[in-house]
Amino acid sequence: MSTGVRRRMGVEERRQQLIGVALELFSKRSPDEVSIDEIAAAAGISRPLVYHYFPGKLSLYEAALRRAADELAGLFVEPHEGPLGARLLRVMGRFFEFVDGHGPGFAALMRGGPAVGSSRTNAMIQEVRQAAYEQILTHLGVQEPPARLELVVRSWVSLAESTALIWLEGRRIPRAELELQLVHDFAALVAVSAAYDAEMAAVAGAMLAGEPADGPFGELVGRLAALVPGGGVPGPR
Amino acid sequence: MSTGVRRRMGVEERRQQLIGVALELFSKRSPDEVSIDEIAAAAGISRPLVYHYFPGKLSLYEAALRRAADELAGLFVEPHEGPLGARLLRVMGRFFEFVDGHGPGFAALMRGGPAVGSSRTNAMIQEVRQAAYEQILTHLGVQEPPARLELVVRSWVSLAESTALIWLEGRRIPRAELELQLVHDFAALVAVSAAYDAEMAAVAGAMLAGEPADGPFGELVGRLAALVPGGGVPGPR
Repeated sequence: MSTGVRRRMGVEERRQQLIGVALELFSKRSPDEVSIDEIAAAAGISRPLVYHYFPGKLSLYEAALRRAADELAGLFVEPHEGPLGARLLRVMGRFFEFVDGHGPGFAALMRGGPAVGSSRTNAMIQEVRQAAYEQILTHLGVQEPPARLELVVRSWVSLAESTALIWLEGRRIPRAELELQLVHDFAALVAVSAAYDAEMAAVAGAMLAGEPADGPFGELVGRLAALVPGGGVPGPR
Repeated sequence: MSTGVRRRMGVEERRQQLIGVALELFSKRSPDEVSIDEIAAAAGISRPLVYHYFPGKLSLYEAALRRAADELAGLFVEPHEGPLGARLLRVMGRFFEFVDGHGPGFAALMRGGPAVGSSRTNAMIQEVRQAAYEQILTHLGVQEPPARLELVVRSWVSLAESTALIWLEGRRIPRAELELQLVHDFAALVAVSAAYDAEMAAVAGAMLAGEPADGPFGELVGRLAALVPGGGVPGPR
């Protein structure tokens, strides 16, 4: 509510405001192209005052990234209720919503954008990957993952990243299709690993046990089998 | 053959020798930890002479990376003969051989190592990804890939990268297993995409048409189907 009187903000409040303004600008255009002058104008303060709160663009960028990273990591938190496939699909919906809303900033960051040279930004990226990885393990009910499971989950996280980045280039595929595809990709990567390793087969079995018979995983296998005429599909037992 | 006489090298010959020496050192330890002094000692010349050929460590690093990138891109070239799965498996064997031999340097580079801040190193990484992508398209016999095929192939290239990087952390899984797994992952990602899109189903069909009935792809589908008891697998038609 505007009172017509410009209230003086406290230091932390002003910092948070600047972070929000910067994050919004960095989300819509590559951070390389956003100047401190623009951020100052959008926040309604002078350029020197921005420097009073943040010594330079990199520190403001890192603070904005910190907020975005916390938000992104939080999106992977999902109640432990219902079938796994449906849970992962909800997470993917939130992930693409985030990517969609922060496109240019996300792409610039992940492709080694303006903050290259900062080990802090790399560390934040790793943190989000780790958060996603750990969340998935809790849903699988695994505390000490075998090497093959760690590999599958972490490489799938990287697949989700690259799928999002490629999608952002031209948005030529409907977002919802890719959200579902990544859920299927997860199942497919687990299944490939399970096909040749007993420990992974147990993980896959537990994962599929809670799935409805007509759920996406079962349906997928049927569709895959149909692609390979007579391709090693066993008959009914 | 040593003659006991130290022959004076030409400029380009000396540059190539230094690149080779540096690449070997960067392959065995993180480039951050390799000093110009060490490179000079390994090449048998003085530190100032190294600087005569390369203005600084970054330029020598970039030259070494150029050579490695060319080598790596070349590994994806494979004769157009025999089943696709077997071709891709040979490529994966060479890829892991390369990763195995250049472990610390490869990991440092891909995780945003010493040359962060150099858009030239990022460009070289992109070049290798593009070369891998284009090679795979030629094997699929596709010149103008639909968006979904582009996505699958490029995201699989990224999956191969992240699989190699995770493997390097502890080498806890036999290399050969991952080489085969990535071939299967490729088929699985194509199949997932094909399960819901007619254009991709045609690509998958053409891809599988040349595969032997008892080849890895057919076998994989059978193993997958066996993981899902009654999970939508159609009976014999």
